Amino acid sequence: MNITVIGAGVIGISWSALFLANGHTVTVYDVADDAPQRVRDGIAQCEPTLRSLGYDTTDMTARLTFCDDLDEAVREADVVQENGPERRDFKRRLWAQVEKAAKPTALLLSSSSGMTATSQSALMTDPGRMLIGHPFNPPHMIPLVEVVPGENTAPSAVDEAMRFYAALGKTPIRLRREIPGFAANRLQAALFKESVALVRAGMVTVEELDEIVVNSIGLRWATAGPFQSFHLGGGPSGFRGYLDHFATGVQLLWLHAATRPVVLTTRLKNRLVRQIDDSFGARPIQELEAERDAKQLAVRAALAPHPRSGDGDGDR
Amino acid sequence: MNITVIGAGVIGISWSALFLANGHTVTVYDVADDAPQRVRDGIAQCEPTLRSLGYDTTDMTARLTFCDDLDEAVREADVVQENGPERRDFKRRLWAQVEKAAKPTALLLSSSSGMTATSQSALMTDPGRMLIGHPFNPPHMIPLVEVVPGENTAPSAVDEAMRFYAALGKTPIRLRREIPGFAANRLQAALFKESVALVRAGMVTVEELDEIVVNSIGLRWATAGPFQSFHLGGGPSGFRGYLDHFATGVQLLWLHAATRPVVLTTRLKNRLVRQIDDSFGARPIQELEAERDAKQLAVRAALAPHPRSGDGDGDR
Repeated sequence: MNITVIGAGVIGISWSALFLANGHTVTVYDVADDAPQRVRDGIAQCEPTLRSLGYDTTDMTARLTFCDDLDEAVREADVVQENGPERRDFKRRLWAQVEKAAKPTALLLSSSSGMTATSQSALMTDPGRMLIGHPFNPPHMIPLVEVVPGENTAPSAVDEAMRFYAALGKTPIRLRREIPGFAANRLQAALFKESVALVRAGMVTVEELDEIVVNSIGLRWATAGPFQSFHLGGGPSGFRGYLDHFATGVQLLWLHAATRPVVLTTRLKNRLVRQIDDSFGARPIQELEAERDAKQLAVRAALAPHPRSGDGDGDR
Repeated sequence: MNITVIGAGVIGISWSALFLANGHTVTVYDVADDAPQRVRDGIAQCEPTLRSLGYDTTDMTARLTFCDDLDEAVREADVVQENGPERRDFKRRLWAQVEKAAKPTALLLSSSSGMTATSQSALMTDPGRMLIGHPFNPPHMIPLVEVVPGENTAPSAVDEAMRFYAALGKTPIRLRREIPGFAANRLQAALFKESVALVRAGMVTVEELDEIVVNSIGLRWATAGPFQSFHLGGGPSGFRGYLDHFATGVQLLWLHAATRPVVLTTRLKNRLVRQIDDSFGARPIQELEAERDAKQLAVRAALAPHPRSGDGDGDR
């Protein structure tokens, strides 16, 4: 498949690496002069992880090209994965131009977490093949892709997007409505709000908060989501039993949290940053990243006893 | 060490198994006639997991006794771990009685998630050695213990509790203030609220919500907490860079969520239970539990390359 990646930031580079590892041909469009070098360096950084995930990465950059003319970049594309700046006017003009230059059969996907397909496609003549394919960072490592159609996206395009991401080894989930932040970022933001509230209240430091999460709900949710977890926490009567025992207490915690709005003031931000520096500042970010990647790989391997192997060319 | 476990419910049984696996002598106090049988059955269920975690479980129930007289049950205890009903009057009377019967050096710990040590110890003459040691279910599997002193707990008792849980192989985190729900349950409740809101809005089913969590933030938080994750998501300038890029967007998501209070009405609860039945009802709860336990064990093993072994008698 010919895939055009628009925007060579962190997300675009990670997508490019994953597409190449799956045997696809990738054209990267980015107007920055240093884009080709950044992309090549970034893909080289992703490569060991992709190999550990079971992909054949031999010579994968032989199928990588660069193009700084948008029309030309998308002309042969079967799939476009857009990762440009989160500015409404930029995205609207971009899709209107892509639509004119690309094949009518091309699937048009945006990695945006902040702007809906309905909004992004406002200047298109036919927005039927444009929708959101929002990954979780980094896309070549974290399985989830949120597939979110706009009001005018054709159901067939949604199906195609689901198949496209599944064939890459991803876990695509189709959302039934457009809501700001979609689902995963909203869930993450909800936990982050309470995290900030607990640190602000002086109950724990940022480092202690992280320890709490990793050693309880992180381990729990890596293996079963919140609904199944509570279904199993309710005794023989399952989720109904959970609600019978705990709904009142949970409701009280929700009410209590609602009385304490969290505002990221300059002062609060500075306090959080100071604690982050105290806790993690002594170690270079790249070292922490390498440790995180190794751990995430280990968890993925532990939960998937039969990793992908030798199917790098399987869905060309 | 002599440990008395008060209350032989799910939590008390799991604690008993962990204490025994660590080589301690355990006395279980529970007035129910069937308690001894339930405890023995429950410990037998925990045993394979404890073995997988590296504990020597040979003949561990030889050090298990039962006692239905509270004074006698706590008389020789070095540590009391309480797991009784979450009723204020019950706990207050219990601790007043335990205080009279136990050695003055006994460490008095409550597994409660809902009642503070300050409240529970209100009828004690000397509440200095009473505090919260709140596990995450099941205690023999999930590493976290929240150690929460009351207003009158002696610092030395807190230190002892931290050492006691660490020696068991747990990850104790000392909270600096008493807040309803402590930390982990508040964080869990925050994510659960947004989960229910997304299902209520028809954006996803409970099963899809679980898939989203397991395949994104669960994997992320099993390996690094929210603060470190965002520190690594902020580029070269770390958490400061994250705030510069995303604080406004996160604040908008918080505001948006605050406009949609979630109330667990009967109608909403029924709707959630129906979806849970549709998604998980076909499989027996015990089968789902076994799958979860196997996965949690696999994740713990993946993240701890050097599991405990042969130290079952190490801290008697």
